[in-house]
Amino acid sequence: MNRKPTLAVVGATGAVGTVLLELLSTRQDVWGEIRLVASARSAGRRLVVRGVETEVVVLSEAAFEGVDVAMFDVPDEVSAQWAPIAAAKGAVVVDNSGAFRMDPDVPLVVPEVNAHAVRMRPRGIIANPNCTTLSMIVAIGALHAEFGLSELIVSSYQAASGAGQSGVDTLRDQLSKVAGTHLGTQPGDVRRTVGDFGPFPAPLALNVVPWAGSLREDGWSSEELKVRDESRKILALPELRVTATCVRVPVITTHSLSVHARFENEVTVEKAHEILRSAPGVVVTDNPAEGEFPTPADVVGTDPTWVGRVRRSMDDPNALELFVCGDNLRKGAALNTAQIAEVVAAEFVASHT
Amino acid sequence: MNRKPTLAVVGATGAVGTVLLELLSTRQDVWGEIRLVASARSAGRRLVVRGVETEVVVLSEAAFEGVDVAMFDVPDEVSAQWAPIAAAKGAVVVDNSGAFRMDPDVPLVVPEVNAHAVRMRPRGIIANPNCTTLSMIVAIGALHAEFGLSELIVSSYQAASGAGQSGVDTLRDQLSKVAGTHLGTQPGDVRRTVGDFGPFPAPLALNVVPWAGSLREDGWSSEELKVRDESRKILALPELRVTATCVRVPVITTHSLSVHARFENEVTVEKAHEILRSAPGVVVTDNPAEGEFPTPADVVGTDPTWVGRVRRSMDDPNALELFVCGDNLRKGAALNTAQIAEVVAAEFVASHT
Repeated sequence: MNRKPTLAVVGATGAVGTVLLELLSTRQDVWGEIRLVASARSAGRRLVVRGVETEVVVLSEAAFEGVDVAMFDVPDEVSAQWAPIAAAKGAVVVDNSGAFRMDPDVPLVVPEVNAHAVRMRPRGIIANPNCTTLSMIVAIGALHAEFGLSELIVSSYQAASGAGQSGVDTLRDQLSKVAGTHLGTQPGDVRRTVGDFGPFPAPLALNVVPWAGSLREDGWSSEELKVRDESRKILALPELRVTATCVRVPVITTHSLSVHARFENEVTVEKAHEILRSAPGVVVTDNPAEGEFPTPADVVGTDPTWVGRVRRSMDDPNALELFVCGDNLRKGAALNTAQIAEVVAAEFVASHT
Repeated sequence: MNRKPTLAVVGATGAVGTVLLELLSTRQDVWGEIRLVASARSAGRRLVVRGVETEVVVLSEAAFEGVDVAMFDVPDEVSAQWAPIAAAKGAVVVDNSGAFRMDPDVPLVVPEVNAHAVRMRPRGIIANPNCTTLSMIVAIGALHAEFGLSELIVSSYQAASGAGQSGVDTLRDQLSKVAGTHLGTQPGDVRRTVGDFGPFPAPLALNVVPWAGSLREDGWSSEELKVRDESRKILALPELRVTATCVRVPVITTHSLSVHARFENEVTVEKAHEILRSAPGVVVTDNPAEGEFPTPADVVGTDPTWVGRVRRSMDDPNALELFVCGDNLRKGAALNTAQIAEVVAAEFVASHT
């Protein structure tokens, strides 16, 4: 038997799901049937994937009948309920929620870093990391393989779309209200003008907001702890020192991170450039004399992790400073999900031929 | 004799000069005559200070006749030429340019941290720090006094006005062009639309730009080295480990910094809060459960250094994470200049009574 695997896309109508359908239409076509699944609210809609109009079916046990691989891009609680059901029906689930990432029986996979972990999946579920972790981890993983990572101190510049479509809509609406004004010079003038804060705890237009996610112990945000916990798990460094401060900025899509990375071994900028240039999925743009460094406006809509501003710390020959940008909807979500699913598809094909 | 000192404001018509005149009109009135000085282009304009319309005179040796204190808010090369001339005429110069900050015979002063240094001024010149350093150093100085600072790792979120009025104009113009569009989702769409980048090396609307200042050795920007050199000098810690990554964000005014500060002694969040709450010039706003943390939109137009998101590093009992905001035109420039000048004025009055 030599068939291509059947794929289900759960959450096909969401922000990440939309990018996933685009990617499935442009990447190598490893899939047989592609079934689109969503909540009752979106079921019945017709979406185009691989040039074919496809009706969205409602999320149900029956939706997973005959499915080999299921990608989930839905809220944590929906994944928590439905991923085990899909797995019980025989699908390998690639889940982009936070529900399973720290489950010791669920691998957390970035194919460029730990593709081998895909095989250890006792629950039939593979987790996709949080978009902030994903925006830097391919570059960090490549440097770790050479220098041996010992510490990460990260400050993020996170885009509105990390908070979903409502984040994007909120920022666009706020920008319309502040454009053409002289706001942003008196305390609270922006706050009083922008109206609805949407999913953010403060205005995002003409502002930066040092908060993402929900409050956890000792003043940390859930987003900051994800960067810590997920980096440790992906890199298989359970004792890695990680500190993150997550900040939202008025950018539509593409997360940026300022990273201080300390290693076991001495580093040089030349060697770091060489490693990053040969790393799959990484592009180096690092020539400030010519104005070359990554910015979200140039990186959005692209697949790689972009790295620039590579410097060796002046006080520490073992530490590098980097500025990293990655599209949080692509490598940060949909692309990595697709890549994991393709690893599983290749395994499926190998075992069925 | 019991007269008040005569003040000259050099660069009275610039972005910082404008804020200075506002401050001189609202702070305690320690000055006798206030003379406004500017380039030939602006001379003859009439500006209001302390409710009195005052004609701007042209920058010349004669302008410093009888002046006791001269505040300079002009480009580096203008200060380099004219500050020594004003000093030779007997004025104490408080200079906000970068021309003298690292001169060992010129003190670099933040009154809350090292007011005593004002007295050691063999050249008759006192320097005001760079706005990025100033936006955090009052809070850091207070923590250092208690815990003993050993390392700073800083990522900045710097406002457009740090690049002068042309930075503000550029951002406002770019925002008008992107508001109401669906830009920010395709590579380069913002770049192609915003037109002039003004003083920035890339678009600033819907973007963040990891660059401020000019290129120095080994890929560092001048702004990043200023944070390092000036923090060391102000805190009198010539060996302090300092690493900065400076990033411009689409905010009009108020710089923010994500700071990882390591100390000689163990820290607690409670003790840090207590120190910061009692530190002159610092306001603590740190209750994420209630959405309380500093943001530029709330801090702009205010005098203090605002501190929030205080956390102890999970891997290091000697390190604190902070998110700090300060108005870069006020404490970051005009206010600190005015405060230094007031220290000199008090000294003048004491020596003349």
